Amino acid sequence: MEALALASGSASGECIDLRRERESATIASEDFAVWWAGGRHELEERRALESYFFNDPEFDDAVHPSCMSYKQRYEHALTKGTKFLAKLREWQRTRRAEQPTGKNEQEQEGAEGSVNIKLLYDYRMLLSGPVGTALFQQSFPLRLHFSMFLPTLLSQGNAEQQRRWVGRAWRLDGIVGTYAQTELGHGSYIRGLETRADYDVEREQFVLNTPTLSAYKWWPGGLGQTANMVVVLAQLYIRGKHHGLQQFLVRIRDEQTHEPLPGIDVGDIGPKLGANGVNNGFLGFRNVRIPRDQMLMKNAQVLADGRFVQAAQPLLVYGTMVFVRVIIVRDVMFGLLQAATIATRYSAVRRQSPIEPNAPEPQILDHVTQQAKILPQIARGICYRLAADVLWAIYQRVMQQLESAGPNGSGGRELPELHALSCCLKAVCTEGAAEGIDVLRKACGGHGYMSSANFDSIQGLASAAFTYEGEHTVLLLQTARFLLRQHVDALKRKVLPASVTYLRNASPLSWGDNLLENVARALEISASAQLREAWLWQQQQRQRGGHTNQQANNLSGRRLTAAATLHGHAYLARNSIKQLAQLARNVPPALYELLQQLVELFVLDTFLRQLGAVLKWNRISSKQLQQLEQRYEQLLGALRPNAVALVDGFDFHDRVLGSTLGCWDGRVYERLMAEARRNPLNQEAVNPSYHTHLQPLFRCKL
Amino acid sequence: MEALALASGSASGECIDLRRERESATIASEDFAVWWAGGRHELEERRALESYFFNDPEFDDAVHPSCMSYKQRYEHALTKGTKFLAKLREWQRTRRAEQPTGKNEQEQEGAEGSVNIKLLYDYRMLLSGPVGTALFQQSFPLRLHFSMFLPTLLSQGNAEQQRRWVGRAWRLDGIVGTYAQTELGHGSYIRGLETRADYDVEREQFVLNTPTLSAYKWWPGGLGQTANMVVVLAQLYIRGKHHGLQQFLVRIRDEQTHEPLPGIDVGDIGPKLGANGVNNGFLGFRNVRIPRDQMLMKNAQVLADGRFVQAAQPLLVYGTMVFVRVIIVRDVMFGLLQAATIATRYSAVRRQSPIEPNAPEPQILDHVTQQAKILPQIARGICYRLAADVLWAIYQRVMQQLESAGPNGSGGRELPELHALSCCLKAVCTEGAAEGIDVLRKACGGHGYMSSANFDSIQGLASAAFTYEGEHTVLLLQTARFLLRQHVDALKRKVLPASVTYLRNASPLSWGDNLLENVARALEISASAQLREAWLWQQQQRQRGGHTNQQANNLSGRRLTAAATLHGHAYLARNSIKQLAQLARNVPPALYELLQQLVELFVLDTFLRQLGAVLKWNRISSKQLQQLEQRYEQLLGALRPNAVALVDGFDFHDRVLGSTLGCWDGRVYERLMAEARRNPLNQEAVNPSYHTHLQPLFRCKL
Repeated sequence: MEALALASGSASGECIDLRRERESATIASEDFAVWWAGGRHELEERRALESYFFNDPEFDDAVHPSCMSYKQRYEHALTKGTKFLAKLREWQRTRRAEQPTGKNEQEQEGAEGSVNIKLLYDYRMLLSGPVGTALFQQSFPLRLHFSMFLPTLLSQGNAEQQRRWVGRAWRLDGIVGTYAQTELGHGSYIRGLETRADYDVEREQFVLNTPTLSAYKWWPGGLGQTANMVVVLAQLYIRGKHHGLQQFLVRIRDEQTHEPLPGIDVGDIGPKLGANGVNNGFLGFRNVRIPRDQMLMKNAQVLADGRFVQAAQPLLVYGTMVFVRVIIVRDVMFGLLQAATIATRYSAVRRQSPIEPNAPEPQILDHVTQQAKILPQIARGICYRLAADVLWAIYQRVMQQLESAGPNGSGGRELPELHALSCCLKAVCTEGAAEGIDVLRKACGGHGYMSSANFDSIQGLASAAFTYEGEHTVLLLQTARFLLRQHVDALKRKVLPASVTYLRNASPLSWGDNLLENVARALEISASAQLREAWLWQQQQRQRGGHTNQQANNLSGRRLTAAATLHGHAYLARNSIKQLAQLARNVPPALYELLQQLVELFVLDTFLRQLGAVLKWNRISSKQLQQLEQRYEQLLGALRPNAVALVDGFDFHDRVLGSTLGCWDGRVYERLMAEARRNPLNQEAVNPSYHTHLQPLFRCKL
Repeated sequence: MEALALASGSASGECIDLRRERESATIASEDFAVWWAGGRHELEERRALESYFFNDPEFDDAVHPSCMSYKQRYEHALTKGTKFLAKLREWQRTRRAEQPTGKNEQEQEGAEGSVNIKLLYDYRMLLSGPVGTALFQQSFPLRLHFSMFLPTLLSQGNAEQQRRWVGRAWRLDGIVGTYAQTELGHGSYIRGLETRADYDVEREQFVLNTPTLSAYKWWPGGLGQTANMVVVLAQLYIRGKHHGLQQFLVRIRDEQTHEPLPGIDVGDIGPKLGANGVNNGFLGFRNVRIPRDQMLMKNAQVLADGRFVQAAQPLLVYGTMVFVRVIIVRDVMFGLLQAATIATRYSAVRRQSPIEPNAPEPQILDHVTQQAKILPQIARGICYRLAADVLWAIYQRVMQQLESAGPNGSGGRELPELHALSCCLKAVCTEGAAEGIDVLRKACGGHGYMSSANFDSIQGLASAAFTYEGEHTVLLLQTARFLLRQHVDALKRKVLPASVTYLRNASPLSWGDNLLENVARALEISASAQLREAWLWQQQQRQRGGHTNQQANNLSGRRLTAAATLHGHAYLARNSIKQLAQLARNVPPALYELLQQLVELFVLDTFLRQLGAVLKWNRISSKQLQQLEQRYEQLLGALRPNAVALVDGFDFHDRVLGSTLGCWDGRVYERLMAEARRNPLNQEAVNPSYHTHLQPLFRCKL
């Protein structure tokens, strides 16, 4: 029996509901898209790259990955990943040939010595940006080679090591690598890592060992079946003396046969909540020997005779950690807005539950409760982007200053603030994005629960980001440590870094005419007061409770993380207001008005989500709260007509969304059904298990 | 290279950390287990049933289901499901033979006419209780036959229909069924369903059709490849006149060949976030004819000549909906406590980040931030159970009264309250459980993200429960409608139902010595005030805004759902305090003290989670809040030493937890590694894709 036509859809193209939404919007999606992409050129470049890949049938999946076994999924991701890399290099070569010769050519060529961090960062954005997402909704095994292995060689290898390895690695010339730090037994507390490297002075070799089960490396992407080289973080011992954690470059599989080398125990760690294309692996060593020159020696050296030479403060490592966290804020913002686009379009197509009796069922986006689920998430994603942009600008400035002036220049002074801000925003934004994606999924009801809606992959990546590269609570506690120092400095009336100057403002909330200012200030006061309270509690535990500093820290843990969280929210709110002021000059008036509404919605939403903390530390009358609630609902109503045009402006290609519910044309039911029909389970009218099990059960008549 | 032994573990049995936890607890887990199971006999019975299944190697999985393809997963669940049903009947026969003949024998036999709702309910609890969960962490395709298909035949079929179908269905004698209500285009708003059944007077048949794509049935469990009969909800038309929704019994697959019958378009809807063993299906009809006596006619009849006869108020349908929601509260409580047990044991085994410098790394459960993530979830699960027990008791009383006195007896009067309470608790508890499971998963860091930790399956079922059998927002709005009527009645000084009498108490909060009472009262005041505010807003939209009633409802949606949510929290807090008072007589003193701490923690936690709403509607000084925060942290400290003994008391068999992180012996790392090693992907040293794709990529030297 063939599929039936959808009653409410037109024969082809977008469905009527979405067409109507687009026609009645007050903004032009294309204006938004240009702004969002960072300019017309950037937008066109991205679209060209997307067409280049998405028009190639080699990258279509015959079967949805969610229907595959875990093993098939790996093989699929590896196969497609190799095609992707080859085609991407082809693209870059073609583009270079089309462009006039310039300074960038050498960089892009990737000849020895010309591969640099900037190139790798750009490449990372390609691999995990729209095209990478579209092709690999749960990532793929070759990504870590570029995002972790190569950057580590660059930042930790000395000149000779870079000459020897970087060019080959860039060209995947017999080398595919990953980075192995976390172990089964240790994650956040890296000093506790157990893998050890003993220097054998006689043979000028390091001997790597995994002394316990809990010392097994666990998690590195691509480690399972893919990587043949690994940078390993291990405890260095020379003649029994411990010299801290060092990084070692270890070949784990034969370059020709790909067989694990003697003493190497390697495999895949198994299925996860998401990111099932990554081939995360485990790795154990038994007396694995590597030559002395495979310890990465930019920051510390072991000389042939076993002398250990420590380098200066490894500032660039610190910088890389910050960088990765900025990237993560972007990643989760991207996921949140994928989800928001899907849910918005679905809510404009789905009709359910009449508002007026006897009237036709409305689009569910007309229910105020639905608007309250969706529109704040769009606003949140946009304001996270505004914060990520600023963080990135600070990062670049600080790194530049460090390079030119060294650690004692102003860059060095700004580093602790940058570090704290990146910890805090990583923690607060991954939480906000994961929560938002969950709200959006649930806003799509049962259909949001289908894998073909793609919320599972999106949520899976956001959930992972909550934990990796700095566990959530650990990062908040690091932020709090920085804030406590600032609090003490504020008491001493010292000058404070820009992101925390509010700590010096001791005046209570005065509710004026500017609602946004009231709200932002209330959040700052709450952060400030919560910090003071945590600090007092900590003091009290020490002084009156007789606890050590460390015990007092532990006993204050809830209060400290609460302060750090509030600081993050206050920063995000204040930054959004500041960035908005900049935007007035840069975008068309209709778009500016929309962005104003979005920033306001974000700030009010942040306030309402933190209402407990806000009311704990501020006097706000119920009339003022009423005013705020009403404004919130007004904003929902004001944004409603532009909702579809707005998410169109993110310019996600349908392949990037990867969702039966979120496509541009809104043909939700056709896609749900088409995806169901191509499931391998549905290719047989009668499943063999009927004859082997169900029919016999019928016959035995329980 | 063989696996290495875990340094910190003993050669066999439980690990040292857990042994120490158990030895130092102040409660006996077995006392708790007896209370939790509802008595010694119940506990032993359950353990016996569990041994009966778990000692049978037929039910071991050679491969973890998360490694299987979607199709393999279906075949695996179906195969195991048939074995499970056969073995379960065998168990029941054996037990009957062992027990003296009694009234129950006939019931359990399942002869025609002796299958009743009580029997099916008990059977449902077996299928989805510990054993069903252990064997099918993502459920299985034959469950709906017992939980929906048979109960519908019983409650909607007339005597003749029951004689004809129920006995056969109970014995799976050529019949396996499911229940098809939701369609692609309609869920919550069932009046919008589009499937139609036209009565053909000439041939005395109904003709079923799926007029549009959106009319396809979508979701029924077991529908895809398993069921051969379906109860279908469809719009009845007789000579073109509409007679509302009726239920029809339709054969969809041939009893012998299992081929879909002519006009039937059936298949599986595809992978989901969870519940991937269920075989949820789609179903379309094209001119499918069934005889007149296959409309279920207990509540309405179509006579041969086409006359339509409506029955009295279908009260029992209403009752079934309530029943299902009570069951869901139990289901999600079960999932929450599975997750809490896993996270507690893991947190007592995992060691990370020294609290004192130079001291060994502590169990992470010693970090106060970790206690704050885990202990409140245990308390929450227990208090949800206390609410589910009460709801179940009310349900039984009301149903009994209805049966004896009819709809005008006191049972009929209590029905609206029961209905509202079941809506509200279903909504609030599914949300609280899903959120709690997420917190617990994240509290296990990276390892919580592994499928082998089993949080994904547990979370998947809880997430589904958030939406099915009454979408969350829809249920809250239904609750609010009831509450609004009570609010108006309170204004008129009428007598209010027990669960909402607090609405009549207009006095503001007076903070006394009893912290729990203060907190419970503050929650009630907040619910009451939020309801009044929503009501006023609604009135204002109508009177001053010129909106219709329905528009005013929509514009008040956020405020109404907020009121219903607060009502749920206030009820849960108050009920926990009340139930605790009952428990003093029934449990040993040490256990009672523990339960006191847990109830207090739950009530304070509820308060803190609703702090914004509480402070919006109550004056509470910062000193009072300080007192509360301190008490909260004291409770965490007080519960910490009993945490492991407490979760032991839930008496989850390791198979029920299904988690590498949560087993009784705490051998976390061994299990993670063992599970990884048996992954099919790890059975080959070199994956074939190396030769076909990775090596060629090496050779082309990008």
